[in-house]
Amino acid sequence: MTPMEHLDTNGPLPRVVIVGGGFAGLEVAKNLRKAPVEVLLLDKHNYHTFQPLLYQVASGGIEAESIAFPIRRIFSDQKNFVFRMAEVQRIEAEQNILHTEVGPIRYDYLVIATGADTNFFGNEEIKHYSMPMKSIPEALNLRSLILQNLELALVEKDPEKKKALMTFVVVGGGPTGVELSGSLGELRNKVLVKEYPELDPNEMRVFLVEGKPRVLGTFSEQASAKAARFLRKMGVDVSNGVHVKSYDGYELLIDDGRCIRTRNVLWSAGVMGALPPGITNGAVVRGNRLQTDAYFRVKGFNNVFAIGDVSVVVTEATPEGYPGVAQVAIQEGGQLAKNIARLLKNEPLKPFKYFDKGSLATIGRNKAVADLGFIRFQGFFAWLVWMFVHLMSLVGARNRLIVFINWAGSYFTFNSITRLIIRRFDRGDIEQPAPKPAAATPAPSADATAATRNA
Amino acid sequence: MTPMEHLDTNGPLPRVVIVGGGFAGLEVAKNLRKAPVEVLLLDKHNYHTFQPLLYQVASGGIEAESIAFPIRRIFSDQKNFVFRMAEVQRIEAEQNILHTEVGPIRYDYLVIATGADTNFFGNEEIKHYSMPMKSIPEALNLRSLILQNLELALVEKDPEKKKALMTFVVVGGGPTGVELSGSLGELRNKVLVKEYPELDPNEMRVFLVEGKPRVLGTFSEQASAKAARFLRKMGVDVSNGVHVKSYDGYELLIDDGRCIRTRNVLWSAGVMGALPPGITNGAVVRGNRLQTDAYFRVKGFNNVFAIGDVSVVVTEATPEGYPGVAQVAIQEGGQLAKNIARLLKNEPLKPFKYFDKGSLATIGRNKAVADLGFIRFQGFFAWLVWMFVHLMSLVGARNRLIVFINWAGSYFTFNSITRLIIRRFDRGDIEQPAPKPAAATPAPSADATAATRNA
Repeated sequence: MTPMEHLDTNGPLPRVVIVGGGFAGLEVAKNLRKAPVEVLLLDKHNYHTFQPLLYQVASGGIEAESIAFPIRRIFSDQKNFVFRMAEVQRIEAEQNILHTEVGPIRYDYLVIATGADTNFFGNEEIKHYSMPMKSIPEALNLRSLILQNLELALVEKDPEKKKALMTFVVVGGGPTGVELSGSLGELRNKVLVKEYPELDPNEMRVFLVEGKPRVLGTFSEQASAKAARFLRKMGVDVSNGVHVKSYDGYELLIDDGRCIRTRNVLWSAGVMGALPPGITNGAVVRGNRLQTDAYFRVKGFNNVFAIGDVSVVVTEATPEGYPGVAQVAIQEGGQLAKNIARLLKNEPLKPFKYFDKGSLATIGRNKAVADLGFIRFQGFFAWLVWMFVHLMSLVGARNRLIVFINWAGSYFTFNSITRLIIRRFDRGDIEQPAPKPAAATPAPSADATAATRNA
Repeated sequence: MTPMEHLDTNGPLPRVVIVGGGFAGLEVAKNLRKAPVEVLLLDKHNYHTFQPLLYQVASGGIEAESIAFPIRRIFSDQKNFVFRMAEVQRIEAEQNILHTEVGPIRYDYLVIATGADTNFFGNEEIKHYSMPMKSIPEALNLRSLILQNLELALVEKDPEKKKALMTFVVVGGGPTGVELSGSLGELRNKVLVKEYPELDPNEMRVFLVEGKPRVLGTFSEQASAKAARFLRKMGVDVSNGVHVKSYDGYELLIDDGRCIRTRNVLWSAGVMGALPPGITNGAVVRGNRLQTDAYFRVKGFNNVFAIGDVSVVVTEATPEGYPGVAQVAIQEGGQLAKNIARLLKNEPLKPFKYFDKGSLATIGRNKAVADLGFIRFQGFFAWLVWMFVHLMSLVGARNRLIVFINWAGSYFTFNSITRLIIRRFDRGDIEQPAPKPAAATPAPSADATAATRNA
């Protein structure tokens, strides 16, 4: 029986439809391997994205392919699994139907694991002019923008414009913001000198702006403090307890009164559930997430579940839910799969209990922080642990090998091979201030001078 | 003295401006390392593209980063070298000035090495609906289209539409067309079964259409015949001496009367010089190329040179010039650098003599053809030679290592990790025939059926 037959015939087996191929969705599908169900996984991409390393794709440390894994490959041996590359347009939960770009899909059990999107808190201007980094295409756009602006800085004669091109502001001091600003600090200290000898590293400035009183708010005080110290040592300007008021593509206004002229604003200040429309029975709570009980059941339904960043498990013990990290998503996925199996056997469901394995964040070469339960350490050893954990979490031996080669190579040479502008990023309406006019202005471009001298 | 100063001051050294970072341009710059000149290289990308392996990026065999190498890295140790990422808008040869998107640039010696573009022979419709493959973004678009159409075939219920989605026509039987159709044949025979078990490999058809009497026209008769046999063995429908009349995105008309319904037309049927505007003194000949003498001088100028695919060296011995292959470009680049050095010393120039090291083309696993002078061989050994030569030609040990890992991995498993749709390709105006309507038609989509049964 080919998997397609599952879909063509309304087979005898109940159908579990999983929306989203992130950590949570994959884990459910894997753990339903032996269950008497048809598993249908939907994702708008044909690959799983290993989000924890997205920032390295953006900073040119590794290639996109190494943190993306074709979903079909992961499940090539799982008989009861079918994948469809499709975006969900609407959930019609009363009818047990998903409306997708490849037609309607019926389900017996629905697992919503669509993850999170960048949250601009309704500020359309910031949304338009700043760079998010939640997907591989977004990370590649960010990489292109960073490198394009360095190239433009090379030929920019107006010192103010040049400064703005070489100023990078990371908004949001969570793990992503910390790791991103750290790698930008390294770009400045180690790479710029070698690859852009014509640019003065001191002219490149990196800011990290965090609204809460400390960076890495979900980590221990100790880890936060150390991370901030690491960043400052690398020349990153870290400020806590301040908020961005506006950004028009040129000037970033902060509520402490500062105005930073920059062409590069990297937005990692918030997330919101990437929730397909359709569920409107008051289950949607703060951050556009689906509130569930300890069994991941979406309020009002017995066959609709939500896990991962799109959901919030609200119990007396967890009024705020769990943090939006991979570990939570993975453990929720495994637990939900077991509960679905229990449902089919009419066994009682088991409530979710999160086991916190701890948190890791890397700031740069030899610099990381680790909170493992009561064991807290920072620096070189934490950095080794970080590398090991992330290498081992990658899907596929080949990816581990290739990421390792990249890391080892750049560790010893600081040469990242992947600092490529594969596609130029063009925001469309706002063009980078092309230096062309400069060539015509009284302060002409270098080559213009040379040229006129010669002419 | 930083390289930037070269540009700011109209330095004492003569300035050689090289347009294009392909095989030809790189070779000139490298060989001017010790010459008393300023070398300024311009390219619209910040990386060099190893074109011979583009087809493997398109077929998902290797990642784009492995065949792209940052130009700044290649020359990081060359003191008299400066790179600018910029497209040339116009050559003003009478004034010794290039007009670029980053302002005007003066030169003392100009080397035009802008390479070739796809030639659609003025057919706008074919240009619009078929896929070229001369750059990394184009190769990635092609990869996305191939995989998207397989995904669409999975959910397409109309057998005619499904057939068109699974039909691939490669136009042009040069090395690129042969290697591309070969890897499509392999996709069908080896990959489809594993990764798309729901698709019938026999429904996927691959055509190779060549206008000349044989494929690999620049190779020996023996190599051509063997390549065609290899392809046919792999199930590729090879036809020689036929030409494409039209393609409207759905139906491909061939002058032998055939009409092939296909959503995938891969165009490798011709190239033309990618010549920046400005030179209009009759030096532009057939194929939009610059005619030069044996010293690469563009007709009418003593300080403007053209090499590589954008040029044609016309002498009594070579009325048709040399073939547009990497070897010619590389040897021309080396020779031109030497001649520029001679010019500076007022020594007589040496005319170019091409040393043909031979030709290699691969059709698939264990299948390649080699013409090395009078030594001609095909099959497994030729394939080993092909792999060795191409691995060794890659820039950078890391790239060699990573491409090798990919090749070794897929050799033993047939799993290419990089079969990812990183960005969906959307031609914009012509949308893929989305199966959505099908769900509404009397012949409803599988899931629609299931759904209605259930509802």
